[in-house]
Amino acid sequence: MNRIITISREFGSGGRELGRRLAEELKIAYYDQEIVTELIERTGFALEYVRQAEERIPMPLLPITTAHTFGIGQNSAVEQQLSIYNHESEIIKELAEKSDCIIVGRCGDYVLRDMDPYRIFVYADMESKMKRCRERGDDAKGMSDKELKQKINSVDKKRARYYQFYTDNTWGDRINYDLCVNTGSRDIKVLAKKLAAFVS
Amino acid sequence: MNRIITISREFGSGGRELGRRLAEELKIAYYDQEIVTELIERTGFALEYVRQAEERIPMPLLPITTAHTFGIGQNSAVEQQLSIYNHESEIIKELAEKSDCIIVGRCGDYVLRDMDPYRIFVYADMESKMKRCRERGDDAKGMSDKELKQKINSVDKKRARYYQFYTDNTWGDRINYDLCVNTGSRDIKVLAKKLAAFVS
Repeated sequence: MNRIITISREFGSGGRELGRRLAEELKIAYYDQEIVTELIERTGFALEYVRQAEERIPMPLLPITTAHTFGIGQNSAVEQQLSIYNHESEIIKELAEKSDCIIVGRCGDYVLRDMDPYRIFVYADMESKMKRCRERGDDAKGMSDKELKQKINSVDKKRARYYQFYTDNTWGDRINYDLCVNTGSRDIKVLAKKLAAFVS
Repeated sequence: MNRIITISREFGSGGRELGRRLAEELKIAYYDQEIVTELIERTGFALEYVRQAEERIPMPLLPITTAHTFGIGQNSAVEQQLSIYNHESEIIKELAEKSDCIIVGRCGDYVLRDMDPYRIFVYADMESKMKRCRERGDDAKGMSDKELKQKINSVDKKRARYYQFYTDNTWGDRINYDLCVNTGSRDIKVLAKKLAAFVS
């Protein structure tokens, strides 16, 4: 069976970068946005719609104007969101069957539970997460500290709800992971090298 | 400054063994029962009394008959328990000043917070913890599964209360640690080697 590592991460913890660098260190495949790209190719959904669906649990209130343009009812909107999750899960399984790899987010730890993935959760204190967001740029630039903190908390709350909905487990609860790594103010490059030594 | 690693652990997770083996791998000092031995030498407290005090938060209800034999009132019992914590903290600080080391339990992560320790929390699922307890022998032999589970939960509850009382932080909350390691059904020897590579 292939060696699979899944990474769940708090927003701003540098978990995505850690995953990418870890994949480089281990010389194995890394899948994150690639999953979305493949999904779009298969389904024809709009990128923005998929991004929204990845952040929310299915409910009829999700605006569907950016999805397929033909008229669909409320139920279809829910079904469509469920179908995005199901498509992504299928893609994740196919990728994991192909070769050793690292999968970021998208309940990968749960989706691949039969393949005994090594499940990593990446987190950090709020101060470090804010600092990382500011260094990374993105939307953080124009935000006050209070606004940025709210955004970080809000993204993580969405991730937690999404994970809970699809897995019935608690996002970030250590028991669902093999290793929980606090990136704090540490250098992600150095951490990736150490982590590679740990999981090798 | 010396390189200090502190280990907090769930009962039955193999955290103590992991700490000991990690110290061997890193060729640094390991302190666990040694702290109690030193405390007894300094204070004259009875071993059994210290063990009880280490498991409970100070309250007048703790039986004090096994402590010093001269008559002491309820307040003194509380003071004595606080004094055990304070003495242990002093000893832990002295040991950490002396050389690189691993400290197990006793709020070491909090006591040594000014020395920037690398704080590890060790945990596992209940099934693995029960299995480890049974393999280790101890009191587990004569217990039913239900009793053993209750014991594991009860020890951890005491540890959580003790930690909360002295540090005002939540025991096991990932934010208080740099790394949380799930020992699960893994071989502690192998894990210690991997962990040594990670922290080196």
